[in-house]
Amino acid sequence: MNIIDISWPISPSMTEYKNRKSTDISQLKNFKSDHMRESLLSFHSHTGTHIDAQSHFLENGAAIEQIDLNSVVGACRVLDLTQVTEVISVADLEKHTLSSGERILLKTRNSFLTSDAPFDSQFVFISKEAAAYCVEKKIRTIGIDYLGIERNQQHHETHTIFFKAGITIVEGLRLAVVAEGSYQFVCLPLLIPGSDAAPARAILIG
Amino acid sequence: MNIIDISWPISPSMTEYKNRKSTDISQLKNFKSDHMRESLLSFHSHTGTHIDAQSHFLENGAAIEQIDLNSVVGACRVLDLTQVTEVISVADLEKHTLSSGERILLKTRNSFLTSDAPFDSQFVFISKEAAAYCVEKKIRTIGIDYLGIERNQQHHETHTIFFKAGITIVEGLRLAVVAEGSYQFVCLPLLIPGSDAAPARAILIG
Repeated sequence: MNIIDISWPISPSMTEYKNRKSTDISQLKNFKSDHMRESLLSFHSHTGTHIDAQSHFLENGAAIEQIDLNSVVGACRVLDLTQVTEVISVADLEKHTLSSGERILLKTRNSFLTSDAPFDSQFVFISKEAAAYCVEKKIRTIGIDYLGIERNQQHHETHTIFFKAGITIVEGLRLAVVAEGSYQFVCLPLLIPGSDAAPARAILIG
Repeated sequence: MNIIDISWPISPSMTEYKNRKSTDISQLKNFKSDHMRESLLSFHSHTGTHIDAQSHFLENGAAIEQIDLNSVVGACRVLDLTQVTEVISVADLEKHTLSSGERILLKTRNSFLTSDAPFDSQFVFISKEAAAYCVEKKIRTIGIDYLGIERNQQHHETHTIFFKAGITIVEGLRLAVVAEGSYQFVCLPLLIPGSDAAPARAILIG
């Protein structure tokens, strides 16, 4: 079985949204004095590869434990949008004939930034019109290869359009080595009841 | 697809090993003042459902990013050991005819403790002889339904026997609702390079 890890490595030097520095890993026990190793991990809920809960931007939205795991376990399609320079439009998606129930992962030039590069405020994002198009096509899941799916929208329309349609949003995928095509997708967020998001490990099989 | 979540919910009130209190979830942004929710998550590397790296107890052991994900993705067998009162012995395992390459999850009375009960120092664990038997049978992965796989062994023999054989150790599974039998198992630990363990989400499919 060929497993491709598409997760963002978590470390204090990793790229974080708008360069906030929230990730800390401290050794609590070390081999020299304790004959074992243990650590304390600390990071933002939207760190690295993660799934957004509706409660991130919807006042009465569901928290992360309500994510239907069927939306992040099963067949998916990786679309190559590496030619997009700034914003993913309806036209960019129309070329790929989205179908009802699909899990869609978008590979863009974002994937070629290193995992500890400074935050790129010019990252490729999804326009609100393209989000509405995904809703019209009834996809199940949208994945993007950066730490946000929109850029500085005052009312976070790209997010809320997906949330209100019940489409699962996965952010922070790393798709540089992945060719366009069909795979089995598994992305499992930590089970943190009540949280607005949770870090996840994500893989493709195929 | 029937997905069974076998993960330990992460919260400040969750059961922690020897009642250490390491888990903290703080809201950084809330809906009332920020029109969004974001959180800071903090917990011990061996919290809830997690995978142990060899570096936890072996001085030159591999860290968590070296876990072969094939050991935690694929067919598994859940064994019903709920009749065991204290320690899982070779005889307990012999009844189940372990085979080479198997991913084995052990369901014990531990699974019936609630997920926020005080730490039970009398939890069911795996004897070092039973660990050696698993090595002899060449299983690939061992999973247990509590926060440890051994109890107060001075040299952590149960752990080190598994580690030295390259058998992946998964701790903190929740198997109360799972019947003995065969399933597809997926347990994905966060990708935290260098860590001695990582929290994970674990599911059974079947």
